[in-house]
Amino acid sequence: MQIALVGIGKIALDQHVPALAASPDWDLAATVSRNGRVPGVEAFSSIDEMLATRQEIGTVSLCLPPVPRLAAAQAVLRAGRHLMLEKPPGATLAEVHALRDMAAAQGVSLFATWHSRMAQAVAAAKAWLVGRTIHEGRITWREDVRKWHPGQDWIFEAGGMGVFDPGINALSILTEILPEPVHLTAAELDVPANRQAPIAARLSLTGGITADFDFRQQGPQTWDMEFLTDAGPIALRMGGNILEIDGVQAEGRNSIMGEYPALYHRMARLVRNGSSDVDLVPMVLVADAFALARRTTADPFEF
Amino acid sequence: MQIALVGIGKIALDQHVPALAASPDWDLAATVSRNGRVPGVEAFSSIDEMLATRQEIGTVSLCLPPVPRLAAAQAVLRAGRHLMLEKPPGATLAEVHALRDMAAAQGVSLFATWHSRMAQAVAAAKAWLVGRTIHEGRITWREDVRKWHPGQDWIFEAGGMGVFDPGINALSILTEILPEPVHLTAAELDVPANRQAPIAARLSLTGGITADFDFRQQGPQTWDMEFLTDAGPIALRMGGNILEIDGVQAEGRNSIMGEYPALYHRMARLVRNGSSDVDLVPMVLVADAFALARRTTADPFEF
Repeated sequence: MQIALVGIGKIALDQHVPALAASPDWDLAATVSRNGRVPGVEAFSSIDEMLATRQEIGTVSLCLPPVPRLAAAQAVLRAGRHLMLEKPPGATLAEVHALRDMAAAQGVSLFATWHSRMAQAVAAAKAWLVGRTIHEGRITWREDVRKWHPGQDWIFEAGGMGVFDPGINALSILTEILPEPVHLTAAELDVPANRQAPIAARLSLTGGITADFDFRQQGPQTWDMEFLTDAGPIALRMGGNILEIDGVQAEGRNSIMGEYPALYHRMARLVRNGSSDVDLVPMVLVADAFALARRTTADPFEF
Repeated sequence: MQIALVGIGKIALDQHVPALAASPDWDLAATVSRNGRVPGVEAFSSIDEMLATRQEIGTVSLCLPPVPRLAAAQAVLRAGRHLMLEKPPGATLAEVHALRDMAAAQGVSLFATWHSRMAQAVAAAKAWLVGRTIHEGRITWREDVRKWHPGQDWIFEAGGMGVFDPGINALSILTEILPEPVHLTAAELDVPANRQAPIAARLSLTGGITADFDFRQQGPQTWDMEFLTDAGPIALRMGGNILEIDGVQAEGRNSIMGEYPALYHRMARLVRNGSSDVDLVPMVLVADAFALARRTTADPFEF
C-alpha cells in the first residue's frame, strides 16, 4: 500500500523512514516537508498539492509537532485518506475528538499512535501483571532536553507540553500494562521563569503510583518503571524495552528500533480491517495534570 | 422516590432543597453534612452510615466541591445507589471516566449535571441555531468572586478551577446550543501571584468564538453570549435565561430558579429509564484550556 510521510525531521528520518523501508506492507510514495526529503521519493512542500496530485496514495502519516498537526490532519481526512498520527495526537483533546468523528464520517482509518506501547517488553509486562495486585509503582523518566530536543523552543511554549512530551510515553505504557484504570490525585509542575511549559513534573496516581518526569537529567538517562506486586517486584527499563522480574532481566533488549515497525504493521492491519485505534487515555492524564497541578517557578532555562 | 442530599451548604439550601420540596418525583429522605441540616429531615454526618442505615434511599445527590466529591461518589456507586453530581462532575476527567464505568458496572444511573443547560432560554436558542451559520460568537462571563464565593479559598487552590468554576457554565451552554462541536485554539490565564488557579481567562475557539471569563467584576454582573449569524444577531443573557433575537427579548425571564427543578426532573427520568447522562465536553474544554494556556501573573488576590 502506498503511504506519504509529512514532516521530514529527525523523528521521520531516524524512525519512520527505516521502518517503512523495511516494511512488507508499505511503499513510501511521497513526502511533504518544507526542507527535508528522502532520496528517491517524490517530495512536495504542500500537503494539499500532494493529496491532489497523488490520488493513488491512500494513507498519510504525520510527523509534525502537536500545534501545526491539526490543519494537516484535517486536510488528509477531508481528502478521504487513512491517517496515522505521532504522539500526542493533537494539542487538545477536543480537536482529537473532532478528528475521530471526521475519520468515522469519512469511513477511513485513524491511528493515534503511542510508539512506546510497542517497546519490546510492554506486552510481556502487561501479560505478567494480569491478575496480580500492584501495591506501589514508581515511574522515573529523566532525560536531558538539550540532547533529545536541541533548540526546540516550541516544546516549552504554551501547548508544547514541556516534560510531558517524553512523560506521555511513560503514561502510554502505564495505561497499557495496568490491569485497572488509574487517575491523578495530585500533580506538581516546575515551570522555568522564562517559559510556559514544565521542565519537571511529579504526579501521584491512584493505586500507589507516582511519576517523576524531569528534563534536566545529565549523565545517564533514565526511563524506568518499577512496581511492587503481590508476586514480587517487576520493572520495565529503557522505556519499556527491558523487563526485569525480581531483579533479573526476563525479556527485551536495549533498542527502540522495533517500535516504529510495529506501529506501521498495526496501521496496515487497521487499514485492511477498516478500523481505527484512538485511545486518548494518556492524553487525558496529561490534561488532568495541567488542570490539577500546583505550579512552582523554576530557574530560567536556555538551550 | 427517596433521595439523600450530601453537602448542605449554600447551593444545597438555595437550590437543591427548594427544588426537591416542589418536586412531584422526589422525597428528600436524608441529608449528610458536617454542619448543615434541613428541618424535618434525618441528618447524618457520615455518608457510609447513611448508606448503610437507609437502604430504602435509592438515589443520592452530591453538592460537594470537586476535590472531596470523588470518595463520596464512589461510596454511593459501590452501595448500588443512583448518583447525581453537581458541575463539574470531578477534579479530573479520568476520575469521571472511572465513575461512569463504575455506574455502568453497577447498573445504576449517573447524571453529571450542568445546571446552566437548564436555564430558561437555552433550548430555544439551540432550536433557533439549527441550520444557521455562526460567523462569530462572544462569551462574556464576568462576576465578583467575593460576592458569589466569599472566603472560599479552595476555588483558587490547585484543582479548584478558579474562574472556570463559573466559566464552565458558559461552556456547558455553548456546547449545548452550537450546531457543530468546537475546540480551543488558544487560551490565556491570569493567575494571582499568591494563588494557583486563574482569576481570569480569555479563550479562542474554532468558529470565531471567544470567551472572556473574569472573577474581578464589580458593579453589574455579566453572563452573556452574543452570536452573529447568517440570520442576524442572537444573544443569551443572564446565564442563558433570556434570549434576544435581533436585540429584542424573545424568551425567558431573569431567574435561575427553574434550573434545579429541571435537573431533578431529568434525574427522575434517567432513574426510571435505567439510563445515564455523562457529557464531559465542557470539562474537556477546561482541561484543554489548562494544557494549552499561556499564563500571566496577576496581582495577588485576597477575599
